[in-house]
Amino acid sequence: MSVAQSNSAARFIAFEGGEGAGKSTQIEAVADLLRAAGHEVVCTREPGGTALGEAIRGVLMNDYDRPMPAMSELLLVFAARAAHLAEVIEPALARGAWVLTDRFTDASYAYQGAARGLGDDAIATLETLVQGERRPDRVLLFDLPVAQGLARAGKRGEGNRFDRETLAFHEQVRAAYLARAGSMPERYRVVDASDDMDGVRVQIERALADLV
Amino acid sequence: MSVAQSNSAARFIAFEGGEGAGKSTQIEAVADLLRAAGHEVVCTREPGGTALGEAIRGVLMNDYDRPMPAMSELLLVFAARAAHLAEVIEPALARGAWVLTDRFTDASYAYQGAARGLGDDAIATLETLVQGERRPDRVLLFDLPVAQGLARAGKRGEGNRFDRETLAFHEQVRAAYLARAGSMPERYRVVDASDDMDGVRVQIERALADLV
Repeated sequence: MSVAQSNSAARFIAFEGGEGAGKSTQIEAVADLLRAAGHEVVCTREPGGTALGEAIRGVLMNDYDRPMPAMSELLLVFAARAAHLAEVIEPALARGAWVLTDRFTDASYAYQGAARGLGDDAIATLETLVQGERRPDRVLLFDLPVAQGLARAGKRGEGNRFDRETLAFHEQVRAAYLARAGSMPERYRVVDASDDMDGVRVQIERALADLV
Repeated sequence: MSVAQSNSAARFIAFEGGEGAGKSTQIEAVADLLRAAGHEVVCTREPGGTALGEAIRGVLMNDYDRPMPAMSELLLVFAARAAHLAEVIEPALARGAWVLTDRFTDASYAYQGAARGLGDDAIATLETLVQGERRPDRVLLFDLPVAQGLARAGKRGEGNRFDRETLAFHEQVRAAYLARAGSMPERYRVVDASDDMDGVRVQIERALADLV
């Protein structure tokens, strides 16, 4: 549906990766650097980013009497994404802002397409339906061994439906992310998220240098 | 996704129509008649029908800081539908029950496809993605002049996002339903819902006679 018209100064950056990879912390640090350089920066997240999106996030993270069908999960994610695009992302890009989002459609390929087994075609169908031509200019994949990420996520005391998935589930998520990064090297940069905070920030600056 | 395998005794009937057409009341009456004839009958509704579906219904009917994007509305409806199919409709059809649902995918064509302007193609794409080959055996369209339906719905004291839509919106819903019924006469039966309760029930019995 999107016409994908950005102001030429606009940049759309997705921060992707499994649980506990440190995306949220780094988004704020990168936003500060970009603002100091004079850019308007919008930080947002998925699922969420709007009042409707946060309500959908609540439905997604909740437990029900039965396991949530994978297709329902996928459609809920895209329902939130449609509002996120219309209300936050497209208006910001149209006025020339940088949009930094904590997760976007690559997460759907990794979580619902690969780990939940729905396959890439279902994701691609919805991606076209909801986003038209809109894709991130760059995807930063925060990569980390699964056990290390889960240990970090556990420390935050969170325990939603996704955090409680099996190790095999999270391994599939990681493998799918790495496979996508490998197949689209011009759009992806893999960040070694096991590095310390300063080291990760240096990697991010290098990964975005050609876009600034 | 659905393999669409029904027990040969199973029947899948959708009750469709605008606000205040009397579908809910008639579903219960028809269910009683079918049960008296020895059939297992499952009565359900959309959006809803499962714990997850009712949570999604809550998100759909609620008001937010901004109007809900039509695409989000559509994807929420199908997210609930995917669970409804997996947990309620397909298991019931597999064991030979009659499933009577208060709204199904024709409502998506009428409300989101026509009245919200998303177009039939978007609905058809999701219909295939979520339902595979599954379609109702019969759609009973409860038709009623819009003003009459809204007056009835108003009497129930409901006032959700859909009830509050313009007259033009509800006219588009009605026109889209009638157009679909006209284009698929083998699957559709139009019920004159301005008739009295007994008259409507006689029309329904006639509309289902070849399926019993």
